[in-house]
Amino acid sequence: MRGAVLYGARDVRFEERETPTIIHPTDAVIRTSATCICGSDLWSYRGINKVEAPTPFGHEYCGIVEEIGSAVTKVRPGQFVIGSFFASDNTCPHCQAGYQTSCQHRELVGGAQAPTLRVPLADGTLVATSDLPPPEMVPSLLALSDVMGTGWFAADAANVKPGKTALVVGDGAVGLLAVLSAREMGAARIIAMSRHPARQKLAREFGATDVVTERGEEGVARVKELTGGIGADSVLECVGTTESMTQAIRSTRPGGYVGYVGVPHGVTLDGQDLFFRHVRLHGGPAPVRRYLPKLIELVWTGKIDPGKVFDLTLPLDQVAEGYRAMDERRAIKTLLRP
Amino acid sequence: MRGAVLYGARDVRFEERETPTIIHPTDAVIRTSATCICGSDLWSYRGINKVEAPTPFGHEYCGIVEEIGSAVTKVRPGQFVIGSFFASDNTCPHCQAGYQTSCQHRELVGGAQAPTLRVPLADGTLVATSDLPPPEMVPSLLALSDVMGTGWFAADAANVKPGKTALVVGDGAVGLLAVLSAREMGAARIIAMSRHPARQKLAREFGATDVVTERGEEGVARVKELTGGIGADSVLECVGTTESMTQAIRSTRPGGYVGYVGVPHGVTLDGQDLFFRHVRLHGGPAPVRRYLPKLIELVWTGKIDPGKVFDLTLPLDQVAEGYRAMDERRAIKTLLRP
Repeated sequence: MRGAVLYGARDVRFEERETPTIIHPTDAVIRTSATCICGSDLWSYRGINKVEAPTPFGHEYCGIVEEIGSAVTKVRPGQFVIGSFFASDNTCPHCQAGYQTSCQHRELVGGAQAPTLRVPLADGTLVATSDLPPPEMVPSLLALSDVMGTGWFAADAANVKPGKTALVVGDGAVGLLAVLSAREMGAARIIAMSRHPARQKLAREFGATDVVTERGEEGVARVKELTGGIGADSVLECVGTTESMTQAIRSTRPGGYVGYVGVPHGVTLDGQDLFFRHVRLHGGPAPVRRYLPKLIELVWTGKIDPGKVFDLTLPLDQVAEGYRAMDERRAIKTLLRP
Repeated sequence: MRGAVLYGARDVRFEERETPTIIHPTDAVIRTSATCICGSDLWSYRGINKVEAPTPFGHEYCGIVEEIGSAVTKVRPGQFVIGSFFASDNTCPHCQAGYQTSCQHRELVGGAQAPTLRVPLADGTLVATSDLPPPEMVPSLLALSDVMGTGWFAADAANVKPGKTALVVGDGAVGLLAVLSAREMGAARIIAMSRHPARQKLAREFGATDVVTERGEEGVARVKELTGGIGADSVLECVGTTESMTQAIRSTRPGGYVGYVGVPHGVTLDGQDLFFRHVRLHGGPAPVRRYLPKLIELVWTGKIDPGKVFDLTLPLDQVAEGYRAMDERRAIKTLLRP
């Protein structure tokens, strides 16, 4: 089969790769219905994370189970399934506590930008829908594999509650879906930070009540102004830079929550500054598996439509163009059809 | 009157100072029944925090109201009161949210190691007991002014819950009272980190079920071993160094809580490390005022006896010896009698 392979900075090739097969009895192999490109992969694509060797690319997926290992009992061939970028056994103490991305047996799922994919720990990782979904629902279900689950975790970690004020830092796909998550959790006011008209528009569609275009200290001042000098109750940090974390922490009210899901790159936090700001900090790789049943239900019943973040759809063999479009911010998020 | 004044590193003098009077209509002046020495003042005493000018010293106090300003309505002369090291109006949005140490009008209370003390924002800062306390209760009531409230905040910020495992990093007075707080909040297992026999003994009296003497990576390994490889649910950080914060963060289970109350000195946190550990972080200067009514009740009814941390009592004019004893770790905490 042919799939996407990252060779180095801005060098993604669509080329012949070995077709995945069952290796362990707990594996499943799925035929991908759709896959996509993650903002977090831009760190590698741009050469900020070093690429040591050619690496099968992509970690977001949904599709039809083709084959299962002898120990798999919870999914069966023919089912439509969604899984997370970290495979997890869903039984260890960390999984039981809801932190499947810290599973004691976790494994990164890689090489999803391909027609078929091996998923380890299939019983703990994959969640099947009750039926085969209609084709128009596939993008929203695909979004649950990472980007929507990550936005949801940002809102959950930031303790978004009905009637409260949420601030979203970052207008990438995760940030936009963090807006949607905050709306779904009942935030009365949702402030989105964005200076990009198309993203502002989608943020408003997803439930943003205010848009702040200022950044840095000016951005903090604007948020303070919008919140009566107090700061936001919940701040959802969806970027992962020192600037975005600083922005997030300084915009939070004392006792308020920062949920951070942007993978931190070069971020250090000053202990004393954090101490005197009285904020609460929680984040990490989103435990998508915890949220999958709930989020599948919300998509299935038409309550949320996270697939709207895909503003570019390409055939899988044009994956390189998909990365270029996201790198140049021409696309919010690229869906790839095998 | 004569009171303690810090001149520089290891230079505390007991000397003539101006007697406090009402300056603002919201002030009260109290006659201190007892005062004490705070571990956090050792940063200045040891010259790690620079001392710019001679500074009246001490911020923990309880005593009898002598005089009130014209705007004070909630306390009256003759009452026994306790207050926090930060004066707060107790009405601003941050106070209402329970973060009185981030009060929009907060003022540091200083110069408490003296026979009388001016307390700003008396209505919002001071809490009166229902009656004059018996003399033997005064040490425990004094402890509520900072050290016990701070240990309690560590436990609260670390989300200590009945049946859970709490780890306390730091065996100073705050750490020991964090143990007591964790017991009071129902932790089933309380692990105290200490290599000092007298402190270990008091930790056990306050409710510690296990004592860990190892530090650094060995300490983390020991805690992991005691918790079945998982880590503690709640970690109460009561020191404020890079070593203690690292110890705390690495000993916490994914999804677990670090409550940190040791004023951070030179602490920087690596964003990516924090991200992948999935811990929750909350701390800061303890909002003692929030807890005062509850803690006064616990002392009044004999449920807690935080005054046990005072293992040295000196007349106020020997304050310099009190600092030396704590600096040299000969005393856990020094009570001073005016």
